[in-house]
Amino acid sequence: MSYVLYGSPSTASLCVHWMLLDLGVPFELHMLDFASREQRSPDYLRLNPQGRVPTLIVDGAPVTESAAILMLLAERHPEARFDVAPGAPGRAAYLQTMVFLANSLLPSYRNWFYADEDGDPEGAGAIRERARLQIEAAWERIDAELADGRAFLLGDRKTAADHLATMLARWSRNMPRAATRWTHVKAYLDRMRQDPGLREVHRREGLADWIDG
Amino acid sequence: MSYVLYGSPSTASLCVHWMLLDLGVPFELHMLDFASREQRSPDYLRLNPQGRVPTLIVDGAPVTESAAILMLLAERHPEARFDVAPGAPGRAAYLQTMVFLANSLLPSYRNWFYADEDGDPEGAGAIRERARLQIEAAWERIDAELADGRAFLLGDRKTAADHLATMLARWSRNMPRAATRWTHVKAYLDRMRQDPGLREVHRREGLADWIDG
Repeated sequence: MSYVLYGSPSTASLCVHWMLLDLGVPFELHMLDFASREQRSPDYLRLNPQGRVPTLIVDGAPVTESAAILMLLAERHPEARFDVAPGAPGRAAYLQTMVFLANSLLPSYRNWFYADEDGDPEGAGAIRERARLQIEAAWERIDAELADGRAFLLGDRKTAADHLATMLARWSRNMPRAATRWTHVKAYLDRMRQDPGLREVHRREGLADWIDG
Repeated sequence: MSYVLYGSPSTASLCVHWMLLDLGVPFELHMLDFASREQRSPDYLRLNPQGRVPTLIVDGAPVTESAAILMLLAERHPEARFDVAPGAPGRAAYLQTMVFLANSLLPSYRNWFYADEDGDPEGAGAIRERARLQIEAAWERIDAELADGRAFLLGDRKTAADHLATMLARWSRNMPRAATRWTHVKAYLDRMRQDPGLREVHRREGLADWIDG
């Protein structure tokens, strides 16, 4: 079993980096230099045709899509109990939450941060505004789910959904309404930000902001 | 084991409806009346807080997110081999493809079809244009994957990825560049459109267009 992670500090690779640290498995880490657009180099595009991070090389084969990588790692290391096993109670909620985070928050953040990358730059304002509304609607919904006081997104233990959601929450820190502005999300994030693995991945990626609120 | 599907003809519920027919399992079907906004009724919002379809009630509990529902059904009925089992070769590609379809195509179609639903209607043009570019980039990528002549998205047998991708391909039929305009995607769809389950779900949902090219 071998893992090689291609990523960049403070990007979508962080959740995979964090889970690898949590699992305590050996892995190689390649941080790409976004300033020189290393993520668009021919070598990297062969691994990840979209030129995005993360890519995790699993036993020699590249795997992309952060939510898929987290689900794969969780099921390859069942002893960590980072997923809900097929057939177990809560399996449907696990799949639903992973897909929800992957298809509501992730692409909306992409539209928020890269609104002027494709298409007509004059339309960037409208694209960002719609992305902001979609992101806020997602946090509103997550806040409602956390209102019952559960410690983690799916109940009483940390799963891949927490790796993904916590990373996505940080991305909102400089937005008009940060995720921490929702009461139950804030309480959840205050707990998550004490997670030793999250603190360690922030340290390794040189991220000083947000982790201490 | 009981299934109740809430959907609406020609929407994202089609892929779940199709898989249920393929599985040959009993299910109840509730088609919501979008014209009277039944998907925003308090009763339905209790099942699906986003007011979207599909919702599948599995043994009494609602499950949302079409990609998650397909993955759940596939693993609950392993004899149909609509997923790639955990640990089997190709598992990573299965997870990656399901997440890719769920987070690239699905939200971009939503932005294309409902560009003026949220936010400033004046920005709808820019939102649609960006969505169009994202959708076309996704078909471009899928076309490249199909270029090796494989019969199905993940190889030589039909999986949940084909239920999802074929439905998503139909949604492009009136767009500036329909999915059928890519050579390998067209050949793939011409095969998929002969699938008896797909033809049956089109018949049941009253869809006469597209299925015959």
